[in-house]
Amino acid sequence: MTSELPSMTLKTIGIVRNGIKQALPANSDWRKIVSHIVINSALTEALDGLEGFSHIIVLYWMHGVAVVGQVPTKVHPMGKQELPAVGLFATRSPYRPNPVGKATVRLLQCLGNTLKIEGLDAIDGTPVIDIKPYIPGYDSVTNAEIPQWMTNLLADHC
Amino acid sequence: MTSELPSMTLKTIGIVRNGIKQALPANSDWRKIVSHIVINSALTEALDGLEGFSHIIVLYWMHGVAVVGQVPTKVHPMGKQELPAVGLFATRSPYRPNPVGKATVRLLQCLGNTLKIEGLDAIDGTPVIDIKPYIPGYDSVTNAEIPQWMTNLLADHC
Repeated sequence: MTSELPSMTLKTIGIVRNGIKQALPANSDWRKIVSHIVINSALTEALDGLEGFSHIIVLYWMHGVAVVGQVPTKVHPMGKQELPAVGLFATRSPYRPNPVGKATVRLLQCLGNTLKIEGLDAIDGTPVIDIKPYIPGYDSVTNAEIPQWMTNLLADHC
Repeated sequence: MTSELPSMTLKTIGIVRNGIKQALPANSDWRKIVSHIVINSALTEALDGLEGFSHIIVLYWMHGVAVVGQVPTKVHPMGKQELPAVGLFATRSPYRPNPVGKATVRLLQCLGNTLKIEGLDAIDGTPVIDIKPYIPGYDSVTNAEIPQWMTNLLADHC
């Protein structure tokens, strides 16, 4: 299936700095956590104009959970053993074939090659692989539906 | 900066099929384009429960635009030369240090190892690297702000 495809190797474009040395428990609230992303200085100019957006999308490599070999195909949502296991692609479990995280965060400040952001669920030292502007309508959905088990999880979480 | 970091190599988890052999013009509307994502059959079970979500997030490798060497740090939004160049991270240009695309799409059907979706802006044969459920509140923002030039672009686009 993949024989004709190019190699897909990621480059680190920046590093997360927030002093959080290990992952918080699965149901933790990261929404108020302030982090800095220090972008590779050769890419500083690529941030021009980003400060006009209130929110950005951060793609990052979840190096703290990267595992060698097979990941489970089914998982208990948020590690809750009392809930039926579901397919991992129906969850945001970090244990994925490609441990790439995607977070939508508030951009508080853009200064030189450093972005100050709020709401990133990533630990200190996490490699950042992309920054994209958050675009309402393209990145958001009106009246999206989720299953009841996810609704219940979110209610527990808040 | 990256010396202590692990290698970050992506695996293909599925392939886009939609019969579109080359990228549409920059301002094209992909919202009604129906695609199938054929997931690696070893990962079929990992899709269990995904059908309960109306929308999913697709991360994909933009192999059609992957370039060797340096990407420009500033670009004209949507290729419009009449607009001032801005930093590439302030745009959704496919020419990025890591050509990873992120789209939020409607999930029409989940059948075996095939997902039928609407709204993916990727050509036929695109490697898919992750599928995540779209979660309102986590993935969406109320009252996000964007700069005037992006507002104008979106108005032209619709």
